[in-house]
Amino acid sequence: MIITLKPNTPQIEIDRLAEYFESKGVRVHRIHGENFDVFGLVGDTTRLDERDVRSNVWIENVQRVQVPYRLANRMFHPEDTVVDVEGVKIGAGQKVAVMAGPCSVESLEGLCSIARAVKDCGASILRGGAYKPRTSPYSFQGLGYEGILDLAEARRRTGLPVVSEIMSERNLDEFIEYIDLVQIGARNMQNFQLLKAVGRINKPVMLKRGMSSTVEEWIMAAEYIMANGNPNVIFCERGIRTFEKMTRFTMDLAVIPLLKEKTHLPVVIDPSHASGDWKLVEPVALGAVAAGADGLIIEVHDRPDQAFSDGAQSLKPEKFRALVTKARAVARAVGRDL
Amino acid sequence: MIITLKPNTPQIEIDRLAEYFESKGVRVHRIHGENFDVFGLVGDTTRLDERDVRSNVWIENVQRVQVPYRLANRMFHPEDTVVDVEGVKIGAGQKVAVMAGPCSVESLEGLCSIARAVKDCGASILRGGAYKPRTSPYSFQGLGYEGILDLAEARRRTGLPVVSEIMSERNLDEFIEYIDLVQIGARNMQNFQLLKAVGRINKPVMLKRGMSSTVEEWIMAAEYIMANGNPNVIFCERGIRTFEKMTRFTMDLAVIPLLKEKTHLPVVIDPSHASGDWKLVEPVALGAVAAGADGLIIEVHDRPDQAFSDGAQSLKPEKFRALVTKARAVARAVGRDL
Amino acid sequence: MIITLKPNTPQIEIDRLAEYFESKGVRVHRIHGENFDVFGLVGDTTRLDERDVRSNVWIENVQRVQVPYRLANRMFHPEDTVVDVEGVKIGAGQKVAVMAGPCSVESLEGLCSIARAVKDCGASILRGGAYKPRTSPYSFQGLGYEGILDLAEARRRTGLPVVSEIMSERNLDEFIEYIDLVQIGARNMQNFQLLKAVGRINKPVMLKRGMSSTVEEWIMAAEYIMANGNPNVIFCERGIRTFEKMTRFTMDLAVIPLLKEKTHLPVVIDPSHASGDWKLVEPVALGAVAAGADGLIIEVHDRPDQAFSDGAQSLKPEKFRALVTKARAVARAVGRDL
Amino acid sequence: MIITLKPNTPQIEIDRLAEYFESKGVRVHRIHGENFDVFGLVGDTTRLDERDVRSNVWIENVQRVQVPYRLANRMFHPEDTVVDVEGVKIGAGQKVAVMAGPCSVESLEGLCSIARAVKDCGASILRGGAYKPRTSPYSFQGLGYEGILDLAEARRRTGLPVVSEIMSERNLDEFIEYIDLVQIGARNMQNFQLLKAVGRINKPVMLKRGMSSTVEEWIMAAEYIMANGNPNVIFCERGIRTFEKMTRFTMDLAVIPLLKEKTHLPVVIDPSHASGDWKLVEPVALGAVAAGADGLIIEVHDRPDQAFSDGAQSLKPEKFRALVTKARAVARAVGRDL
Repeated sequence: MIITLKPNTPQIEIDRLAEYFESKGVRVHRIHGENFDVFGLVGDTTRLDERDVRSNVWIENVQRVQVPYRLANRMFHPEDTVVDVEGVKIGAGQKVAVMAGPCSVESLEGLCSIARAVKDCGASILRGGAYKPRTSPYSFQGLGYEGILDLAEARRRTGLPVVSEIMSERNLDEFIEYIDLVQIGARNMQNFQLLKAVGRINKPVMLKRGMSSTVEEWIMAAEYIMANGNPNVIFCERGIRTFEKMTRFTMDLAVIPLLKEKTHLPVVIDPSHASGDWKLVEPVALGAVAAGADGLIIEVHDRPDQAFSDGAQSLKPEKFRALVTKARAVARAVGRDL
Repeated sequence: MIITLKPNTPQIEIDRLAEYFESKGVRVHRIHGENFDVFGLVGDTTRLDERDVRSNVWIENVQRVQVPYRLANRMFHPEDTVVDVEGVKIGAGQKVAVMAGPCSVESLEGLCSIARAVKDCGASILRGGAYKPRTSPYSFQGLGYEGILDLAEARRRTGLPVVSEIMSERNLDEFIEYIDLVQIGARNMQNFQLLKAVGRINKPVMLKRGMSSTVEEWIMAAEYIMANGNPNVIFCERGIRTFEKMTRFTMDLAVIPLLKEKTHLPVVIDPSHASGDWKLVEPVALGAVAAGADGLIIEVHDRPDQAFSDGAQSLKPEKFRALVTKARAVARAVGRDL
Repeated sequence: MIITLKPNTPQIEIDRLAEYFESKGVRVHRIHGENFDVFGLVGDTTRLDERDVRSNVWIENVQRVQVPYRLANRMFHPEDTVVDVEGVKIGAGQKVAVMAGPCSVESLEGLCSIARAVKDCGASILRGGAYKPRTSPYSFQGLGYEGILDLAEARRRTGLPVVSEIMSERNLDEFIEYIDLVQIGARNMQNFQLLKAVGRINKPVMLKRGMSSTVEEWIMAAEYIMANGNPNVIFCERGIRTFEKMTRFTMDLAVIPLLKEKTHLPVVIDPSHASGDWKLVEPVALGAVAAGADGLIIEVHDRPDQAFSDGAQSLKPEKFRALVTKARAVARAVGRDL
Repeated sequence: MIITLKPNTPQIEIDRLAEYFESKGVRVHRIHGENFDVFGLVGDTTRLDERDVRSNVWIENVQRVQVPYRLANRMFHPEDTVVDVEGVKIGAGQKVAVMAGPCSVESLEGLCSIARAVKDCGASILRGGAYKPRTSPYSFQGLGYEGILDLAEARRRTGLPVVSEIMSERNLDEFIEYIDLVQIGARNMQNFQLLKAVGRINKPVMLKRGMSSTVEEWIMAAEYIMANGNPNVIFCERGIRTFEKMTRFTMDLAVIPLLKEKTHLPVVIDPSHASGDWKLVEPVALGAVAAGADGLIIEVHDRPDQAFSDGAQSLKPEKFRALVTKARAVARAVGRDL
């Protein structure tokens, strides 16, 4: 951690500050510059919060050298982590995993019909929302527990593991019992109570990026889960909020290589939410596979115009089949399979 | 709601769509344009979700005329709402309410000392965080229930009502018992389970804006609380996330008149989080009062450099006193008091 | 164009407004809603500016149905445009064009050496900056006219057409004389005088997206060039500015299919500026090709650490060669060549 | 400048790098950390470009301690600069200057009529656009030279100095001859050729912030003008581009104290463009004055619904008069006058 002092800080304050940091267990390396004094702190600074340090009136600026995450940090864990979702292995150059299904679970029969269709097209995990975060209190809020049971039954009938979003600690038991991959949605990426709760369970977690979360905040959210005991975290980019209005969100492609450089965890892309428009889903998905994604999660519905939610970004099964075929060709072109 | 159909939509599909919307209880007004057909839907469209409508393949675009909120909508509730926090009245041209206190509750004695200081300077509500949303799992997470009890005791000793942030439904009982104004933090603005939960209690709620939430999403979050039965909602702007790096967030001043035009609820400004730097707090606070804010919430600490969190943006009591004096002068210049 | 009137607009004002719009040559279709009156304007509304219309006090809101561009609009020009840069054809499913070279022209020999290297790796157009937009007045500003002459000489020696950025109308003659593809940089995307100037020349123009320009503003900038007589415009996405700090900019992948839907012009991607980090260039470039880009423009330097500018995002020739090989495999996987 | 080397950088490379920086005239202070080596560079680093330094493969990260601007830097120029616009003094606690007038000059008589009105209300400088940057090539582009002559005549008749936007170096002579305060618009903030050109003239320049420019980039644009010889620069905040759609731009209030801390130049606020809606102009303007702005620039039109541009954000004279009265009261409340 590099600490820049204000111009003209009295020597006595400089000494006091140096002592203070030494008392925190780090060594202080002093640089006397032309206009500023600078401290270089050497040692474990993970527990020093930059903003707390900055509160001292003699400190002008604080800059981290060491990143604030340890468990997710590739420096301390050089090998790729492979997350196993009931036999589907994700990460480390394994086959690109394809998760697909409806935005919302709407009925058992509808779900099973879509599940069979996506399995037939090549999907290996079934997605479906039972608890739905909706902007309006007047919109369909999901089937809740009934939807969870429908997912469990669809898994029984098709053999596909299931992924679904958890919105409250209160539903944790249902997810432990019936869901194979627990999704934290974008709006809850910094719901720290929920992160701690899923950190204590023995199920893999797929952590979507908050719509305005920096990559560092996202990794720190994964660190919350890992620090509470759960090492099986998958990142899922679903688009960030920008000024552009023609797409729902802006997919940040560079996070794929970036997360792989900084961490050892798998990265999945959600082109459906990232673009918000079914016509854009295929090209965005192909781009993600070419850039090295470990998986895709895609909304598929047999009757998008009658979907209870997000029909606008759902693919029909035949379009999904075409996407999978092309994505497989792209995966092979970059030395992967799908 | 205005619906634009795709060029060359077959007449039979146009008719089908029109029937579909009529079946939803709205009248369809058809416009035959040069390149497009357009439907104008007349009636209550609050329950039609734009994105769901857009999922029909013949629909090019959907635009709302009517806003999607009812309870928060000034059109249906023209008078300003006044929220009463244990005798402190907020909104509708009442005195500008000043809430102040430490970022985190650190100890009972420290809290009471700051409470007395801010009361003496003119604050009418005490703030203090017991449950702290921190980016890092390794940072101080707040005293939790003990902090809530400290707030209750500080209230008893000073007579100041207290405001504190709730992070989980599980803590709702503590807040009902001890806290006068329940704060929903920026990171939980779309934690819809929590919004529903505080919608069912009989306490005023201060709803902070999500760091990347649009004004419409923010109003819809208030609508969640109101639709669950709680009409006493206060908006709190605390800065939005932009590309600018020199400040922590960017305070969006225009939301003050904008929210007052669209809704009937009070608007409070948090200049401490919005700027992230104590040197900027005073000018931002004065600007907010001049622009018509109904209240301010400000972090004050007697020893900012030893604060457990956010010392960088905390004012010392003497600076806070100066701020209150100037803010009062500005309030009077615009026909208010403070 | 859909115009929503304010609630309770007097009938006489409604009639006056309708007459006004009729006088502008459009037909007015009136919808009488429950809370609002709405006008649907039918006819050519390209010349009506939404913001000008909104200035009437009785108008609540204005929404376009028809987009404001004509020449760039695929609706009126369904076939893909192919831009020919001295024999290199770009767009319409042609081979993916690879442009490469140093950020800045630094010397004739250095330029020619890099030019030969990138040609050998498969590039078909040489890039090189002679006039450099630099944030600091104290940074290297480019060789200017000398750099343009070096580019012309490198073209003579290698046979590669050249692309370079123009920063001022005053240099137009040099570009007409020596440069094959005239680049408008991100910072000048709305330098309308410059757009008009390059609209009057007989050379293809590559129009980079402004770092915070919407897709619609970008298409309108192309429309400026086309409306002044030059139909040969290529879009170039180079990343937009967002809150994320770990990358220099955020590449907006979805613009590739989006621009192809809305317009008929080719789309090139600049992964070097979009990511700002040489380690990210290859995955971003592969993603762009998979998503359907018509070309790539990539910074290559034989000694990046001695480059006069942007060494951090420049590839060494051997890495560029590897990128081209992989990009070719991806292009073939999606039915293109490179 | 603090340079962090990659983990495991060979000692020979560390030594080579240190020598390299010493050769650039700075002293290198070495810190040997647990996972990283760090260099602290002491001396004048203004001419070292961070991104150029980062291009070395052994360098992980580069962080500035010293800011990259000198002439605009308050550290080297502690007193406030007062810019004199034909007798109207702006900055350093002088009266808050009010600039007002139509968005576009539309006719001589219309301009003079508005000029007399705004002067009568308390404005001291007349604004009016002769060259207009318009998103669409089909929108009114301004009267050009004729508009400049109208401004000169309005000045002659009313005695008000005039401010107008320059869009091209080619028009520089007109501005030198007839305009008192030369405005650089948001879209040209990084049109470096234009910045250099106005840096060489003997007229004050008002530099609007680019809609997505950081404060540091903005100060560097001022530095361009100053480094070319013109010390009379005024900053003008006109709102930045964010995700929020209900306002045209988001006014960044904190830049007022921030620019005053970092630089010695005056700061003017444009509430008309920042909000884009005449109903928001007054509260935003009052907020700006309370926060310490040195001036306001406001669009006023006697018939906003017939304005050639930006009528939606123009005030009628009577509303402008009310704004000035209130702004004066606020200015006095914070120890200024207006």
